[in-house]
Amino acid sequence: MNWQNRRNSKMTPTEFRHTVRDNRFKKTTAGICPGFAQANLIVLPQADAYDFLLLAQRNPKPIPILEVTEIGNRKLQKLGLDTDIATDFPKYRIYKDGQLVDEYLSVADYWRDDLVGFLIGCSFSFEDLLIDAGIEIRHITEDVNVPMFNTNIPLTPAGKFSGNMVVSMRPIKSSQITAAINVTNRVPDVHGAPIQIGDAEEIGILDITKPDFGDAVTIKDDEIPVFWACGVTPQAAVMASKPSFAITHSPGHMLVTDLSNKDLIV
Amino acid sequence: MNWQNRRNSKMTPTEFRHTVRDNRFKKTTAGICPGFAQANLIVLPQADAYDFLLLAQRNPKPIPILEVTEIGNRKLQKLGLDTDIATDFPKYRIYKDGQLVDEYLSVADYWRDDLVGFLIGCSFSFEDLLIDAGIEIRHITEDVNVPMFNTNIPLTPAGKFSGNMVVSMRPIKSSQITAAINVTNRVPDVHGAPIQIGDAEEIGILDITKPDFGDAVTIKDDEIPVFWACGVTPQAAVMASKPSFAITHSPGHMLVTDLSNKDLIV
Repeated sequence: MNWQNRRNSKMTPTEFRHTVRDNRFKKTTAGICPGFAQANLIVLPQADAYDFLLLAQRNPKPIPILEVTEIGNRKLQKLGLDTDIATDFPKYRIYKDGQLVDEYLSVADYWRDDLVGFLIGCSFSFEDLLIDAGIEIRHITEDVNVPMFNTNIPLTPAGKFSGNMVVSMRPIKSSQITAAINVTNRVPDVHGAPIQIGDAEEIGILDITKPDFGDAVTIKDDEIPVFWACGVTPQAAVMASKPSFAITHSPGHMLVTDLSNKDLIV
Repeated sequence: MNWQNRRNSKMTPTEFRHTVRDNRFKKTTAGICPGFAQANLIVLPQADAYDFLLLAQRNPKPIPILEVTEIGNRKLQKLGLDTDIATDFPKYRIYKDGQLVDEYLSVADYWRDDLVGFLIGCSFSFEDLLIDAGIEIRHITEDVNVPMFNTNIPLTPAGKFSGNMVVSMRPIKSSQITAAINVTNRVPDVHGAPIQIGDAEEIGILDITKPDFGDAVTIKDDEIPVFWACGVTPQAAVMASKPSFAITHSPGHMLVTDLSNKDLIV
């Protein structure tokens, strides 16, 4: 499915989640179901849930919480009733003691009664609004995953959790940067306005062609790299803080929700 | 101290907190230290902290969290370094099993190592911005506490906590309602825009002259009652949900922080 097909597909979020649930879609989700919000995932044992919720409260820009599940429950109440968070992301990662174990198409076999799921706002949600504003999203055009980078920006710690912010990068034409800021400023629940514009080195990114997650994309001569806080940040915190067990989505492989992007605008 | 004196006082937030700490100020804090944000308080045992933080996450309009203390610690990191949350509110309430025990000028003698303090945004913070926009704040003019009402609007429950929203009411001239909405819409961390305009009965308020907390104020012929979500909401949830122990501020008796109201504007 190339990006034009993605934009033109008439699949509803529920239909798309069923496709994913049946393992018939295993790719990244940028551009899928335009108009509907996407969500990042981190699942932690109940024992770590308070510290993580507090981390999110103290770092709302990289970790904007859209919904928290009831303990042990894989269903959602707000983002989509026909949703199973253990099967409806195209790809998952499991971490034990901060170490990546493997990637999985479903984590149903690894679910436990003491697990809590945190659904986190995703910048893929605002790409739709940027496209509507006439801004090209390069990784969608090039049909690759968005480039994501570790930074030197420390999170405000909470309990056992600390780490640095992860950012996503999109090359934006100089003439469109104001529009890109204005559009994303209106959606704080999906990371809001950029945290850095044009100076990768200032936030500790030494090689813009080598992302820590996702794929490199072309940056043209009249474009400036623009950095947004990224929902992969919790994974960096997990790796840095080593909880006994964690499930996350695989970067770029999001849940498509029933929430309209328009409902995220404040 | 009448309201003109309050507005004209040059006391800094730190000086004011010291005055409160020494029990030399026992009144409500509307209009105190103009330009600086005020905060509501709820203190709960660690065992109830996750449920309450989740309640706030699910109900950000009545419960916008400004800061959460470390377990057992009475100091703040963000809202004011020279702050002791057990002494710097003019008046406190203690609840046991959901029952009000008494009111106190200090709760230092009741502090425990397992307590967590939640500082919650307060609509007194935006009154300053409303006054700057030429809008009279009646309870400040009349030197009484803001009128607050229980409503029929249910919170989204979280764990053991549930209850209905509490609102504060300010009479606003019809010609100034647009301005009042625009001003408060820009400060979501202190309850943001009104939740109801003009129809008390629709939200379950049967007698506008008999507030459940605070004092009644004059509503003139050309004015409409406007209702904002209120930081007393957690107290209603506490009363409804009966945790073993809770400390709150006494309605209207807030902490004055070092945070500028301007920094709350998004």
